[in-house]
Amino acid sequence: MQKRKWRMGMVGGGKDAFIGAVHRRAALMDGRAELVCGAFSRSPEKSQAAGRECFLPDHRIYGSFQEMFAAERRLPAGERMDFVVIVTPNDVHYPAAMAALAEGFHVVCDKPMTTTLAEARRLELEVRKTGRLFCLTHNYTGYPMVKEARDLARDSRLGKIRRVVVEYPQGWLAARLEATGQKQAAWRTDPKHAGATCCMGDIGSHCENLAEYITGLKIKSLCADLTTFVKGRTLDDDGSVLLRFDNGARGVLWASQIAVGEENALAIRVYGEKGAVIWRQQDPDTLIIHWTDRANEIRRRGTGFVGPAAAAATRLPAGHPEGFHDAFANLYRRFYDALEATAEGRKIKERDYPDVHDGVRGMAFLEAVVRSSRSGQKWINL
Amino acid sequence: MQKRKWRMGMVGGGKDAFIGAVHRRAALMDGRAELVCGAFSRSPEKSQAAGRECFLPDHRIYGSFQEMFAAERRLPAGERMDFVVIVTPNDVHYPAAMAALAEGFHVVCDKPMTTTLAEARRLELEVRKTGRLFCLTHNYTGYPMVKEARDLARDSRLGKIRRVVVEYPQGWLAARLEATGQKQAAWRTDPKHAGATCCMGDIGSHCENLAEYITGLKIKSLCADLTTFVKGRTLDDDGSVLLRFDNGARGVLWASQIAVGEENALAIRVYGEKGAVIWRQQDPDTLIIHWTDRANEIRRRGTGFVGPAAAAATRLPAGHPEGFHDAFANLYRRFYDALEATAEGRKIKERDYPDVHDGVRGMAFLEAVVRSSRSGQKWINL
Amino acid sequence: MQKRKWRMGMVGGGKDAFIGAVHRRAALMDGRAELVCGAFSRSPEKSQAAGRECFLPDHRIYGSFQEMFAAERRLPAGERMDFVVIVTPNDVHYPAAMAALAEGFHVVCDKPMTTTLAEARRLELEVRKTGRLFCLTHNYTGYPMVKEARDLARDSRLGKIRRVVVEYPQGWLAARLEATGQKQAAWRTDPKHAGATCCMGDIGSHCENLAEYITGLKIKSLCADLTTFVKGRTLDDDGSVLLRFDNGARGVLWASQIAVGEENALAIRVYGEKGAVIWRQQDPDTLIIHWTDRANEIRRRGTGFVGPAAAAATRLPAGHPEGFHDAFANLYRRFYDALEATAEGRKIKERDYPDVHDGVRGMAFLEAVVRSSRSGQKWINL
Amino acid sequence: MQKRKWRMGMVGGGKDAFIGAVHRRAALMDGRAELVCGAFSRSPEKSQAAGRECFLPDHRIYGSFQEMFAAERRLPAGERMDFVVIVTPNDVHYPAAMAALAEGFHVVCDKPMTTTLAEARRLELEVRKTGRLFCLTHNYTGYPMVKEARDLARDSRLGKIRRVVVEYPQGWLAARLEATGQKQAAWRTDPKHAGATCCMGDIGSHCENLAEYITGLKIKSLCADLTTFVKGRTLDDDGSVLLRFDNGARGVLWASQIAVGEENALAIRVYGEKGAVIWRQQDPDTLIIHWTDRANEIRRRGTGFVGPAAAAATRLPAGHPEGFHDAFANLYRRFYDALEATAEGRKIKERDYPDVHDGVRGMAFLEAVVRSSRSGQKWINL
Repeated sequence: MQKRKWRMGMVGGGKDAFIGAVHRRAALMDGRAELVCGAFSRSPEKSQAAGRECFLPDHRIYGSFQEMFAAERRLPAGERMDFVVIVTPNDVHYPAAMAALAEGFHVVCDKPMTTTLAEARRLELEVRKTGRLFCLTHNYTGYPMVKEARDLARDSRLGKIRRVVVEYPQGWLAARLEATGQKQAAWRTDPKHAGATCCMGDIGSHCENLAEYITGLKIKSLCADLTTFVKGRTLDDDGSVLLRFDNGARGVLWASQIAVGEENALAIRVYGEKGAVIWRQQDPDTLIIHWTDRANEIRRRGTGFVGPAAAAATRLPAGHPEGFHDAFANLYRRFYDALEATAEGRKIKERDYPDVHDGVRGMAFLEAVVRSSRSGQKWINL
Repeated sequence: MQKRKWRMGMVGGGKDAFIGAVHRRAALMDGRAELVCGAFSRSPEKSQAAGRECFLPDHRIYGSFQEMFAAERRLPAGERMDFVVIVTPNDVHYPAAMAALAEGFHVVCDKPMTTTLAEARRLELEVRKTGRLFCLTHNYTGYPMVKEARDLARDSRLGKIRRVVVEYPQGWLAARLEATGQKQAAWRTDPKHAGATCCMGDIGSHCENLAEYITGLKIKSLCADLTTFVKGRTLDDDGSVLLRFDNGARGVLWASQIAVGEENALAIRVYGEKGAVIWRQQDPDTLIIHWTDRANEIRRRGTGFVGPAAAAATRLPAGHPEGFHDAFANLYRRFYDALEATAEGRKIKERDYPDVHDGVRGMAFLEAVVRSSRSGQKWINL
Repeated sequence: MQKRKWRMGMVGGGKDAFIGAVHRRAALMDGRAELVCGAFSRSPEKSQAAGRECFLPDHRIYGSFQEMFAAERRLPAGERMDFVVIVTPNDVHYPAAMAALAEGFHVVCDKPMTTTLAEARRLELEVRKTGRLFCLTHNYTGYPMVKEARDLARDSRLGKIRRVVVEYPQGWLAARLEATGQKQAAWRTDPKHAGATCCMGDIGSHCENLAEYITGLKIKSLCADLTTFVKGRTLDDDGSVLLRFDNGARGVLWASQIAVGEENALAIRVYGEKGAVIWRQQDPDTLIIHWTDRANEIRRRGTGFVGPAAAAATRLPAGHPEGFHDAFANLYRRFYDALEATAEGRKIKERDYPDVHDGVRGMAFLEAVVRSSRSGQKWINL
Repeated sequence: MQKRKWRMGMVGGGKDAFIGAVHRRAALMDGRAELVCGAFSRSPEKSQAAGRECFLPDHRIYGSFQEMFAAERRLPAGERMDFVVIVTPNDVHYPAAMAALAEGFHVVCDKPMTTTLAEARRLELEVRKTGRLFCLTHNYTGYPMVKEARDLARDSRLGKIRRVVVEYPQGWLAARLEATGQKQAAWRTDPKHAGATCCMGDIGSHCENLAEYITGLKIKSLCADLTTFVKGRTLDDDGSVLLRFDNGARGVLWASQIAVGEENALAIRVYGEKGAVIWRQQDPDTLIIHWTDRANEIRRRGTGFVGPAAAAATRLPAGHPEGFHDAFANLYRRFYDALEATAEGRKIKERDYPDVHDGVRGMAFLEAVVRSSRSGQKWINL
């Protein structure tokens, strides 16, 4: 059993952020960690305000991540933060993560991991060099029924996988929201902060990660068509990709931010020779399973009919809905287990949270998608 | 008002057929027609047996369509069939339809219309030349809520269309059913009877037709990936297509016969600048409508909240489910209206059933899909 | 095999009727019968108009059922109608059915069978006396997945039945529609035509019939609360009933015509010791099955996973929706089988269509409901 | 803004408890409180073990609530707990709450509030006398779309309410689980711990609370039928209730713990003259709204189309599912607001969390249900 609460710091996640508060709730939900410090904004005033709302003492609220890492480094071991959570726009992920690792801190980082594949590879090297833990918050893998789907797809129960359909439609950028000053829209549509892609980077990357997580297959080649529908926007707000996997399976991946009336309708369907799994993020406690030899099945989180991984990722009885926060908290739960093992010098058997290698994979996917979209050639290898 | 029942003949549709009985039910459901003759099978014995089950007198049961057209031609006008329904495997559509037109009969023909684009064009010419009516049974366009979707998408209510996602997953050919002698599977997977494609021809063609019917847009170019997953099979049993429409909209179309546990899960989603429509064939009385300025809407067949086209295509009060037969019967209903207008020398204002031009369009799509799938070039123009 | 088409006559079902056209479509859909005569309205002009729309010759269109039965009686056996379909308002069911039976015709009659229990019992006697066939169109029992539910509930698979919840909400009478002259509303809310109850008689009776049909249990006692919400209306437009079944099972039955926004949302849930079945009329091809020892199941019409009764009641492959007409046609299909057996002097093994005994049972239920609603006593025996 | 974290103590909620961990997560999720002490079990060893898992220092882990209240009372104000959360079996609620109030602590208490109406009334008096805050965790009222339903039902938008249908089916007690030693089942089925009712007290009480919360109406009289289906069990495991509300509305309420395959399928449907709302706990982010003058609506949490109360109760964007924990946390959020107001001597405008008066109302309902079930009289006044 864990001996004390883990001490968490945060970079980003100030007032206008959405994902910072999510991380705090998810990280704190099980009472295994406490927030001890933060550099919540580039603006010291805003950082102060955010930190005080979290009941932090003023001296643990910082104006920059550089300042924070240096100051925390100097604190006594019994007080110093254990790990940092990076929840800034994409372009700050890389410098903040590199600095944290260099100062000896474990890192939890939002996705996409970096803005280029080259950065992703350098970060991978740094993680290996420093031996620090690195968790990339591809949060959808934290849902219990996603784990159930993975366990069904990866062993022989579905048979050889043939077809994958994964999609992530949203409608919130159907008009030019960034022109109104909405901060979430502003940085995501700005190549300086977001990198080479908006829609694919923000949500298509979850599709790629989820498809490979569930199937255990690797995308081998792809053919992409990115579009910018809203006038005045630079980056893609919609895209479709044909996929070929390393085992011969075929797939379709599409993501859109202009799909009017869609919320976060991430969904995946995986068809094998003997069965299929269908999962929808907006109804996350349900996994529909198809079989060739019996009627389709509604498998539900919390019942006695799920496998051990799904059961272990569950907090509530069946029918008391778990949601986004609970799934997110599952990544933290596994990250804390790893912290504990590390603290005790134990080997971690199974990590089961997305890490720096997933981040590299994601950036390779995004670069291939952008390249393919500009190309007249049909298939681009990943 | 129609003065008498239309007299219908049938080519194909014997005992092992699925679609012949559907046509008979749909054609007869409203009591506006009667079956008077048929050449139900290449085997005279089977044709006899099928005809007797339909209570036809023996002399109106024929051993071939050639025989039937010739014999019916000679009957007095008050007895002779008015139109013929062709429900054979694909390769017989063309010769039977050409012969029927040449003998002066109106034609209802199953889809895909022919096995090649060249045949389709010749048939189009023959229809023009003979002035006979020709209905192609792209039956999904007969659903009331498909008509509602079309009316919303084609006028300005959804705004400019941006994205179309259309899919038709089935699972019935996930194993090699054709090897068991199942007739439906046997001819569909046999290039001699089916033409150059199985999955795309049989069900992908419905996707193409539905997308263009609802949006009023034309597919301009496409990029396809057809696959044969089941060993020993020659034709495709799965395929995905990226689409670009003539107004700049983008789309994804996929169809599969190896999607285990799927039945006839045809579904279409059309996203415009101001709204979206979502329709699923397995829940056909419901149209989900998204709006940018208000909550999503569940529009239902039979209520007071649908437009005139959907209302006119409705037989039952809301909540008493209409289904496949009812939608199919709507094609016949409009075809009978056209027969009546023709009989009275009236012009038909709006035909609203798929015709020979839709058939040509479908074959052009299928030829482009097959060509694209074999090509290393990304986009193929239609 | 049936040797000829059955000859059908109709009483009621003129222009403003809803259910007459349904009966014609359902009766004719399989091509096993033909409409040969009718008395479609009390008004000879309206009867003529309706008959001509059905392409009947003028001499087979009658001004009253009395006239029709007498005239048809005198026709040669090879021409005369075989059976009559009674689709009038409730109060005409009894006299028309009694007259038809007396003249030797088989009868298909809409529900509720009569307006009083006493009439129902006299009709039961007359059916027995004449030996004619009598089919009461409790049409919901015709759905394939209702038969599947029945087969699961009646053998040991669900275990002893404990709880039944059956409901039929509609919203079409939420305002005083009858005041606008709408005919369907007018006669249903008028005690002279409808009998002692509106809502319970029209739709609650379907709940009772469905619950007993599926479970094979009998309602032993009940406690009812009927209400009239709309001012100016005499009969109930809403009602709830507590049920006790003969095996000790408990239940709730409710029906409403003022449930705004509901269409024909008939639904039944039956819970046993080992399993449960859930069926909803608006999604009729689906039966949800619960088990104590495995995950919940989505059983679908047309798949290989249904029992023989459901399979035999099916016309279309899975995923091609069947609907109200198809289920209705299943009653006619079984009725024709019985006509055939009768014609050939064969015994009918299993009738599987609702008959005069179901009608008596329904009237006993309705009388108990009305009595209970007026009583201060909790339980009333059926 | 709140100046410091609220200090929370807990009575009950040890290892085998389900609801204790839920309360901790919900109470801590927003970082506005911290757990400082607890008496988690009657067994000091179990209490120690549970407290250490929560990282509490040994001297703040107590062997009984009496000991805890006394000890905490003596701690300096800056250290002492502010409020206590009571999450024991039902029979301890009353003594623990009375003692906490007497010692000056605010109370959060699980439902049903007490085991008798008499206790409930004494507790109500004590709350009034001490002036302490009392929150009763009828947690379903914390869901944003429940608040939306309430706002629609309580103002004139739905028109006068006519019919309410509320149900809570579960299947977990379909067999005699309590005989296996499962603690959750054991105390709930034991009159010594649960009081006079099991099923109605545990989940039927949520139905009553939800119905009155949403409609603003009061149940005036009822007619109940409680049953015990599982042999060897003393208390009810199933029950149905007819309802009459003070405005003339009628209703049905049913709850069951033997509804095989059901999880926590709490659902409510409220029909008014002009509209209706339908909400299901297992899909909590969705509210279906019916209207007489337009198509049915899918209103979703987090969109721009919900009212202020639902919006204020929301943490995540639409489509990122909120769940049971989030709704539960909304009660704590409002309770903390009230604590803050109390600390600052401010009046609380709107409390919006269930309080001691709801508890009295609930116990009155339960006593009436038990009394009615034993009575031969139809209606019992509340």
